[in-house]
Amino acid sequence: MKKSFTHFTKSGDAQMVDIYDKDITERMAVASGKIYMSNASIEMVRDGTHKKGDVLGIARIAGITASKKTPDLIPLCHNIELSSVNIDFEVNTPKKYIECFATVSCCGRTGVEMEALTSVQISLLTIYDMCKSVDRGMIISDIKLELKKGGASGEWERK
Amino acid sequence: MKKSFTHFTKSGDAQMVDIYDKDITERMAVASGKIYMSNASIEMVRDGTHKKGDVLGIARIAGITASKKTPDLIPLCHNIELSSVNIDFEVNTPKKYIECFATVSCCGRTGVEMEALTSVQISLLTIYDMCKSVDRGMIISDIKLELKKGGASGEWERK
Amino acid sequence: MKKSFTHFTKSGDAQMVDIYDKDITERMAVASGKIYMSNASIEMVRDGTHKKGDVLGIARIAGITASKKTPDLIPLCHNIELSSVNIDFEVNTPKKYIECFATVSCCGRTGVEMEALTSVQISLLTIYDMCKSVDRGMIISDIKLELKKGGASGEWERK
Amino acid sequence: MKKSFTHFTKSGDAQMVDIYDKDITERMAVASGKIYMSNASIEMVRDGTHKKGDVLGIARIAGITASKKTPDLIPLCHNIELSSVNIDFEVNTPKKYIECFATVSCCGRTGVEMEALTSVQISLLTIYDMCKSVDRGMIISDIKLELKKGGASGEWERK
Amino acid sequence: MKKSFTHFTKSGDAQMVDIYDKDITERMAVASGKIYMSNASIEMVRDGTHKKGDVLGIARIAGITASKKTPDLIPLCHNIELSSVNIDFEVNTPKKYIECFATVSCCGRTGVEMEALTSVQISLLTIYDMCKSVDRGMIISDIKLELKKGGASGEWERK
Amino acid sequence: MKKSFTHFTKSGDAQMVDIYDKDITERMAVASGKIYMSNASIEMVRDGTHKKGDVLGIARIAGITASKKTPDLIPLCHNIELSSVNIDFEVNTPKKYIECFATVSCCGRTGVEMEALTSVQISLLTIYDMCKSVDRGMIISDIKLELKKGGASGEWERK
Repeated sequence: MKKSFTHFTKSGDAQMVDIYDKDITERMAVASGKIYMSNASIEMVRDGTHKKGDVLGIARIAGITASKKTPDLIPLCHNIELSSVNIDFEVNTPKKYIECFATVSCCGRTGVEMEALTSVQISLLTIYDMCKSVDRGMIISDIKLELKKGGASGEWERK
Repeated sequence: MKKSFTHFTKSGDAQMVDIYDKDITERMAVASGKIYMSNASIEMVRDGTHKKGDVLGIARIAGITASKKTPDLIPLCHNIELSSVNIDFEVNTPKKYIECFATVSCCGRTGVEMEALTSVQISLLTIYDMCKSVDRGMIISDIKLELKKGGASGEWERK
Repeated sequence: MKKSFTHFTKSGDAQMVDIYDKDITERMAVASGKIYMSNASIEMVRDGTHKKGDVLGIARIAGITASKKTPDLIPLCHNIELSSVNIDFEVNTPKKYIECFATVSCCGRTGVEMEALTSVQISLLTIYDMCKSVDRGMIISDIKLELKKGGASGEWERK
Repeated sequence: MKKSFTHFTKSGDAQMVDIYDKDITERMAVASGKIYMSNASIEMVRDGTHKKGDVLGIARIAGITASKKTPDLIPLCHNIELSSVNIDFEVNTPKKYIECFATVSCCGRTGVEMEALTSVQISLLTIYDMCKSVDRGMIISDIKLELKKGGASGEWERK
Repeated sequence: MKKSFTHFTKSGDAQMVDIYDKDITERMAVASGKIYMSNASIEMVRDGTHKKGDVLGIARIAGITASKKTPDLIPLCHNIELSSVNIDFEVNTPKKYIECFATVSCCGRTGVEMEALTSVQISLLTIYDMCKSVDRGMIISDIKLELKKGGASGEWERK
Repeated sequence: MKKSFTHFTKSGDAQMVDIYDKDITERMAVASGKIYMSNASIEMVRDGTHKKGDVLGIARIAGITASKKTPDLIPLCHNIELSSVNIDFEVNTPKKYIECFATVSCCGRTGVEMEALTSVQISLLTIYDMCKSVDRGMIISDIKLELKKGGASGEWERK
């Protein structure tokens, strides 16, 4: 069967896809992304987390809050109740990046990969905002789905 | 002078920085980013734009709308009136990516680089949403500031 | 039995009505409305849809997005998960109006007629916004419920 | 000079129009609209306003609040600070309609006709919501701009 | 067993707690709070409610609307569908306070005490807003949970 | 002159007051409030701030973010650009309360006392949310304006 963009009708008009016939099951998704920054910035972030100026703690709150705004940001996304949102950071000082992982779950008729990706994006952008007075050259990269479970399309994992 | 994270007080507490003393001037920012996808997806997007299923048109609207939500997404961002928002896409079929450019301007006391970056992020994520029924492996990358004009810190351009 | 405004308590105070005892069933609603405009405007809209300046495509996205904001706009509306949202337009050039139809469904304890009506209103108002540089005299009319299915009050259809 | 849709670039892409060069002046707009309902409903609304179940008071609050959400509802609208919002109702019992008038003003670079129209729409839709348990056949009509002052395009008044 | 803050992981990071394993049951909560004001203000509020300038009617609408915004205001709150929201006021003229009671219910996996408390806060703050041209010294106090039913932790009532 | 509620017209209808004639000046406001909790909870909050589970850091972010939502929460509030928002906490372990101070400033036509009070309310409610798994009996009290500067009504300070 040929795959198609389900967000469009046959005549090419955008729609919020009907999920009524889908099963209510547990669904989860993990997304990740990185922000690359200068030596100076990444050391300030790393030190701040333990001492003062908690960049990552604030970025985590921004990411969790953003997950709940996904249907308001992405036009054709369904609004759904989320069961959980977790956000983790790994500071890689030698390679000069901070990696963000968001894990979101729900129990409903559609998946949460958009919520996980939104959380990663807004977490990383919040890091950018707090570090930009020191470093404007930061680059946000590699935002991607890592894993997806539940629903008719089954499990998907990045190879 | 040593640079510091202005979003924190001396005791390390987050704050929305005082911009009262800054001049009201014209300010603008350009940000860009890319989404990498499979051959099949990028061809569907490119064809749809001209015929039916206008992925990029919808992504543009999502990006423009998101620019106005920036202070609601990024905790320490000021809420400001925007003068203009423009979003452009370049579909690079051989290299299998779509590049997004957002240009935002305002006339106020603080810049609009966060608004430009938010527009790029949400435009690209909306493309992801509309193509994910065909391709879950897409990667969003290279989200970065290109240019920034106006304000005390002056012009900044990526080299 | 005498009908009453269920959105008020016996003492006349507004309330969000208790829907706990209602059944979880599939519910849907269709609403419609029209915008009347000058010959010049309606021809520009019609041509733009096929060539460039896609007024109706943008109005559709605005209407779909607005359906999800209904509980934030209408004070006593319940917040509910929507299953689908579809918006169609018919351009009637001789009679100089564009008609909008919104079909919304959910699976829950309360209906979606307010969501369908909100979608129609905001779709038509978005058309107004995009055409107002050419024509300020446009009139939005005949916004009404067409059909409603599901729930204790059963099916309702406009005669 | 031929008029054009300013919300699109020459290549037909949507944009938030640049208002930087416009003057900061006082601007105001008046919009109006009607909701037609059954005899029974309109009498309940009229009586409730004086005694209990204040439909129009709630509709007024919904309309004022909605004026501030206009840039979030209409994709290409600028976000601007409003100076005032007033909403009036006239209950016409013999002709079985309630008419709503919204007057909005600002001091800025762009007008407030979209804010006035949004207020009228959401006020009337809130009336619909509160009366729908009694009357599903209500029709919202004649939503239109009445008057617009200030700005380069000058005064506009409906004839 | 030692109690702990469930909103944090073992490593001290904030999270939106996983509620997937919780039962879907009816849950309700009652919260209350007071605003203390001058003799002059409280008499104006009391009289306005019956005649004109309906402060409490507007505060009730603000409180009901705010209940639906709770997950957007409180970072780690789940977004849930509410079944009902009721808000009552008692004007105590001799003691110069107005007391607000909010009763919220849902049928879901987590409770609604945050929604009830948010409703009380925003209702009282709306009273403050409307009376502040007369009286800036008002004090909002005693915002507290009164009762909570449903869910694994069972019933809780203030003694 | 007799004072009156400016948020109502002479006929008693709510309005967003016209601020067009007011001067654009610097305005600021300080508000405060307290949350009373058990010995166990307050010690957990105090310790967490330095080690892990940073309740106050998260409450600060919630309060800053909420200040920007004030016009969306309080129906008759104007939407205005804020210049700065600062939130401080004092943990009083012997008296078992945490006190919150919010300082907000703007340069505009109307004051920011509602923004300061909203920040205090939502900061304290966020503390409640994070501690409620340990202690449901917490009480939020003494939310009040401390100081207000700028504008026609001049300086106001609590005695």
